[in-house]
Amino acid sequence: MNVKARFLAACARRPVDRTPVWMMRQAGRYLPEYRAIRQRVDFLTLCKTPELAAEVSLQPLRRFGMDACIVFSDILIPVEAMGARVEFGDGGPQLASPVRDLAAVDRLTVPDPEEKMSFVLETLRRLRAALADDAALVGFVGAPFTLASYLVEGGGSKNFALTKSLMYSQPQTFDALLAKLADTIARYAAAQIAAGAQAVQVFDTWAGELDPPAYERFALPYQKVVVDTIRQHGVPAILFVNGCAGKLTLLAKTGAEVLSVDWRIGLDRVRAELGDRFALQGNVDPCALLSSPQIASQAANAAMLAAGGAGHILNLGHGILPSTPLECARSFVESPRALAVPA
Amino acid sequence: MNVKARFLAACARRPVDRTPVWMMRQAGRYLPEYRAIRQRVDFLTLCKTPELAAEVSLQPLRRFGMDACIVFSDILIPVEAMGARVEFGDGGPQLASPVRDLAAVDRLTVPDPEEKMSFVLETLRRLRAALADDAALVGFVGAPFTLASYLVEGGGSKNFALTKSLMYSQPQTFDALLAKLADTIARYAAAQIAAGAQAVQVFDTWAGELDPPAYERFALPYQKVVVDTIRQHGVPAILFVNGCAGKLTLLAKTGAEVLSVDWRIGLDRVRAELGDRFALQGNVDPCALLSSPQIASQAANAAMLAAGGAGHILNLGHGILPSTPLECARSFVESPRALAVPA
Repeated sequence: MNVKARFLAACARRPVDRTPVWMMRQAGRYLPEYRAIRQRVDFLTLCKTPELAAEVSLQPLRRFGMDACIVFSDILIPVEAMGARVEFGDGGPQLASPVRDLAAVDRLTVPDPEEKMSFVLETLRRLRAALADDAALVGFVGAPFTLASYLVEGGGSKNFALTKSLMYSQPQTFDALLAKLADTIARYAAAQIAAGAQAVQVFDTWAGELDPPAYERFALPYQKVVVDTIRQHGVPAILFVNGCAGKLTLLAKTGAEVLSVDWRIGLDRVRAELGDRFALQGNVDPCALLSSPQIASQAANAAMLAAGGAGHILNLGHGILPSTPLECARSFVESPRALAVPA
Repeated sequence: MNVKARFLAACARRPVDRTPVWMMRQAGRYLPEYRAIRQRVDFLTLCKTPELAAEVSLQPLRRFGMDACIVFSDILIPVEAMGARVEFGDGGPQLASPVRDLAAVDRLTVPDPEEKMSFVLETLRRLRAALADDAALVGFVGAPFTLASYLVEGGGSKNFALTKSLMYSQPQTFDALLAKLADTIARYAAAQIAAGAQAVQVFDTWAGELDPPAYERFALPYQKVVVDTIRQHGVPAILFVNGCAGKLTLLAKTGAEVLSVDWRIGLDRVRAELGDRFALQGNVDPCALLSSPQIASQAANAAMLAAGGAGHILNLGHGILPSTPLECARSFVESPRALAVPA
């Protein structure tokens, strides 16, 4: 079974020879070869230089041999392409002019991906040529609610008070922002698929912070626009919502083939609630990779056993932490080779 | 029905004339009369001066008439009493000497509450005398895992990497810390009940960040020590875990009469999973109180309808935010008076 076929079979809940594995943020600061490149170029230059972006996307596969290669980029690239000024500092992204009224929403454009984000598409084309069938190529986008939260807050947030205040007090303005983001992101996802992405992960990282009615009203419909577009273009959609445990049936309504689950709920409980209609990705606590290879491997095995075999892609429940020892990352990635997939 | 009786009936899932209501962190910075006192005294002096601590505990009841009065204090008071140096700054608590090995655990003492935390007990006695049956008096403690996380991190944390690293790599050391905290907290809770607390809320705020096996191993057993002690002293235990949706059956195993639920899951789903064996408290998003009285009231009504009547205490899903307008807090607290409790 070639590696790309293994990954896509797991997405479709078909039998596999072993559980496929990759790690969110696998191209990143825990790798010395990544840090070496970042010493020479800043983050945004790295994103915008296809040769370098392709190189750092491939670095973790060369070292550890994951089954999937996720393109190196940032969820805020399309936000910048819409006309927002974004600075990518070490303390997280900062937006010079937060979007908090309809006039600010109206100033945002819906960019042509081939014109404004060609560097990401070129990176994908290079990766597809380099990988052949040796790994599945995964594109990604941020979902409208999560991108809106950065635009409204002007950066990251602890409690999303500004975003939720706009959502509650000016729902039409918030809808206008979400609709424009959904349009942008759907086109961008389609362009990534045209450039070679064989699956697209949709990151609605912060939508888990909504209560279920607000999630159903302001996150789900816009996730669905993006997921529908991905599926119409013939590749599986992987939906990630951090802290998803209380909203599993709403995630399922998007129609995404794969649900990427954080570690705060067991995959056995997700299966009990949703049945076998979805493939599951995840869900090891990134902190379980900080201590020793044995603990990393135990955590990987526990996730594989809880998922119960076919229709599982082993991954972390959120991005790998920069302080992760290399031998723990290796142990995690190698775990599926040692554990037989349950029937 | 007197107010105290209404609150205790709801804890016991007996019929009530209307849903009782209070707000986590209701004595706090959103109140101008609280800010006026804090201009004169620092946070720790306020905690340690029974006359002032009782005064700020009563302030929200005078203004809004909640059904429960929670004693004003801080979950880290017993940590300080154990010998840790804690500074309460505006950026959150800071510990001068984090606890990261067995020698540091051994240096912590198990304090006699009457000797080291008499100011909290005196505050409770004053409140009980002042309240009579006009409101239920609620004491509170932090749970061992959450207190351990502050001790290990040296303050608040984003991902609890140090705490979890100690937990995974030195489980015996972590158990020793948790056991000492559980002993301290159980004695402290018993002393609060002796001083007049008619219910005790156990805050395991950060235990929701654990995966289910780690929660079952390192949070649940120590929660149970505290909950058992509270119940043995004849008052209901209210357990709060922020982000609890993926671990509801584990929360239930503590035996706490009341589960205090955050807003990321609907109370109807909690009922569907746990049945009617528990009273539920919560679970409005504190951000729903930032915009208008109408939105605050709608959110309160939605929580009451989702809870389905008896065995519900209306509350927020976490502490009220300092930027909450007074008219929104009022609207929230008054909502149960306008909505008939479903049968």
